[in-house]
Amino acid sequence: MAPTGEVLLLGPGPAPTSLTVREAQARPLLGQLDPEFLAIVDRVQAGLRRLFGVEHRFTLPLAGTGTAGMECVVANLVAPGDRVVVGVHGVFGQRFAEAARRAGGQVTEVRAEFGAPLCAERFAAAVAAGPTRLAAVVHAETSTGVLTDLAPFAAIARQADALFVVDCVTSLAGVELALGALGVDAAFAGTQKCLSAPPGLAPVTFGERALAVAAARQPAPPFYFDTRLLTGYFGKDRVYHHTAPVSLIYALAAALDEVEQEGLAARAARHRAVASALRAALPHLGLHALVPVEHATPMLTTVQYPGGVDDAAFRRRLREMHRIEVGAGLGPLAGRVFRIGTMGHGATLGNVERVVAAIGEALAAQGVRVDTAAALLAARRA
Amino acid sequence: MAPTGEVLLLGPGPAPTSLTVREAQARPLLGQLDPEFLAIVDRVQAGLRRLFGVEHRFTLPLAGTGTAGMECVVANLVAPGDRVVVGVHGVFGQRFAEAARRAGGQVTEVRAEFGAPLCAERFAAAVAAGPTRLAAVVHAETSTGVLTDLAPFAAIARQADALFVVDCVTSLAGVELALGALGVDAAFAGTQKCLSAPPGLAPVTFGERALAVAAARQPAPPFYFDTRLLTGYFGKDRVYHHTAPVSLIYALAAALDEVEQEGLAARAARHRAVASALRAALPHLGLHALVPVEHATPMLTTVQYPGGVDDAAFRRRLREMHRIEVGAGLGPLAGRVFRIGTMGHGATLGNVERVVAAIGEALAAQGVRVDTAAALLAARRA
Repeated sequence: MAPTGEVLLLGPGPAPTSLTVREAQARPLLGQLDPEFLAIVDRVQAGLRRLFGVEHRFTLPLAGTGTAGMECVVANLVAPGDRVVVGVHGVFGQRFAEAARRAGGQVTEVRAEFGAPLCAERFAAAVAAGPTRLAAVVHAETSTGVLTDLAPFAAIARQADALFVVDCVTSLAGVELALGALGVDAAFAGTQKCLSAPPGLAPVTFGERALAVAAARQPAPPFYFDTRLLTGYFGKDRVYHHTAPVSLIYALAAALDEVEQEGLAARAARHRAVASALRAALPHLGLHALVPVEHATPMLTTVQYPGGVDDAAFRRRLREMHRIEVGAGLGPLAGRVFRIGTMGHGATLGNVERVVAAIGEALAAQGVRVDTAAALLAARRA
Repeated sequence: MAPTGEVLLLGPGPAPTSLTVREAQARPLLGQLDPEFLAIVDRVQAGLRRLFGVEHRFTLPLAGTGTAGMECVVANLVAPGDRVVVGVHGVFGQRFAEAARRAGGQVTEVRAEFGAPLCAERFAAAVAAGPTRLAAVVHAETSTGVLTDLAPFAAIARQADALFVVDCVTSLAGVELALGALGVDAAFAGTQKCLSAPPGLAPVTFGERALAVAAARQPAPPFYFDTRLLTGYFGKDRVYHHTAPVSLIYALAAALDEVEQEGLAARAARHRAVASALRAALPHLGLHALVPVEHATPMLTTVQYPGGVDDAAFRRRLREMHRIEVGAGLGPLAGRVFRIGTMGHGATLGNVERVVAAIGEALAAQGVRVDTAAALLAARRA
């Protein structure tokens, strides 16, 4: 195939990657037990600990996507009959609940509307309604753009002696996490969001309490996800368990270096500033954010269409004429919203200007009255 | 990290990758639902069908390593209580049996010594001993270098109306496969062996009979591995299931192009010729292949040490002085053998000469009498 022009990835992920990260993958492979490669794995594990804000020894890049990370958590921590409480206010909460049911969990979903925050009181009541093995929330719900304040949910889980699990797929490296201080027992993430690495790895972390539950689980989890076997490779023994995805780990190491160079606090501030700029532009385009600013993620903004806009035609025009990818609405939001990701390397004011201008053009093409100049000005001043 | 000199990968995988394949990963990412990317996915699926020798619509690169491919097969096809017969004459047969047990299967292992072929008569007796849901063999046992002739085992499974599953992790793209004609119901592979792509993807194929069993399985398999959900993305609907590992799929597409350009028959012949050359050199180095030639894989040669050789020191010398990786013995063979992979891009006569010379030097350093010149001559004349 002939390589074609680049597409600006401002959807829900993958996010754009830097040239350095992309080219890291072109380095010749090393064996997964090679000492030079293991030194890189060490560095990656340490970098992931800093991003999650944990000291957990079991912190590693699982070979698979973010959903594989979720499966690893579920496979180790949910045994048949276990009571599981899941916050569901988007597709990824639904997905966790579904995975826990498939593992045999007795799942209680604490629901809120797509786009609304979870209610901590209702969550607490559900956790208290029976002996709860595990309570889970999604930190940054990629299907809606709602950010969950973790502290109250962590306290609820701790009080009930339940394991507390957090889906950090979209939040990792875009906000500062302190999962250790919060007492989070296990979390999983993706590499293709705010980390700006290619997709295909799932950062996963388990604390000691979770590892003890995993070690006692009956029946044993699938071989691929077994924390004891993964510890064999990702611990001090370094014994073969699977063939590490060497080139993706090169890229992840390079992406972690970039986070380190920028500083996580500065990176989080950049994500917030860029999301604010985008949000400021929306009213001038006849658009409204689905989620109030106080509950909104700083890396994904879900935007409601004005009446009469054809979603598919709008996104196709962005992609074909402007070479920009934005995301479609998922679940009950399909057709009613689109999603703009400003993640990692993609979170720049220049990208906001580019997507604002493109949105203005594409909406105008469908007869929507827009003031693109005012939108751009508002973004710059935000 | 400073990039360091390249290591020649002549172990059990990952195999060396071409510059084209490596650099394919550096292409800017596309979204997993982007039409340009989906065209690449189509091409990859078609290429994998040709390598497996199947027309199965469900043929796809799973996001994960070869072991994830194994788990996908087990998760969909083995339900609690199902009777499963597995040929076990190496680590990867053991691994399949273990995965099937963890899925609740009632597993009968038909064993042979590590390094020996499976006995079809004993396999047939085990399959006939009860209603068998699934019979599985490893095509090219990476831990020993034994190649299994699939036809008799396929016939045994078919006669018993059992699903027939084959681990093709190391054989795919190194030998010609005709799994469709053999009636293989499901198979899985890796990309980092004879395909010479980076690790992190598992080519998987299921025929219609296997898909029907998977669809009826109770309880449902994990979300990540569910064939029905995977079909949503890898079928004509192209709906989101997980974020495809975009850069690895670029590399896989490039690797499949290289197989296509060479031709699978020529590639298989190259692997055979290179393995023969290596085998011819061994006696001159005081070495013997573990597996008789009639049962040996053409991409991995397991070599027995003469008495008194320190395995770790030998392999360390190859790695540090000669910058060549070979593999250690696994399981009962640990310390007694080493494994030379001549896979994909690594299967060249030049690499055989390089490893033969290095082995000669490293054995001589431990006091073994070798005739490296004669070994090289034998390799060239083979």
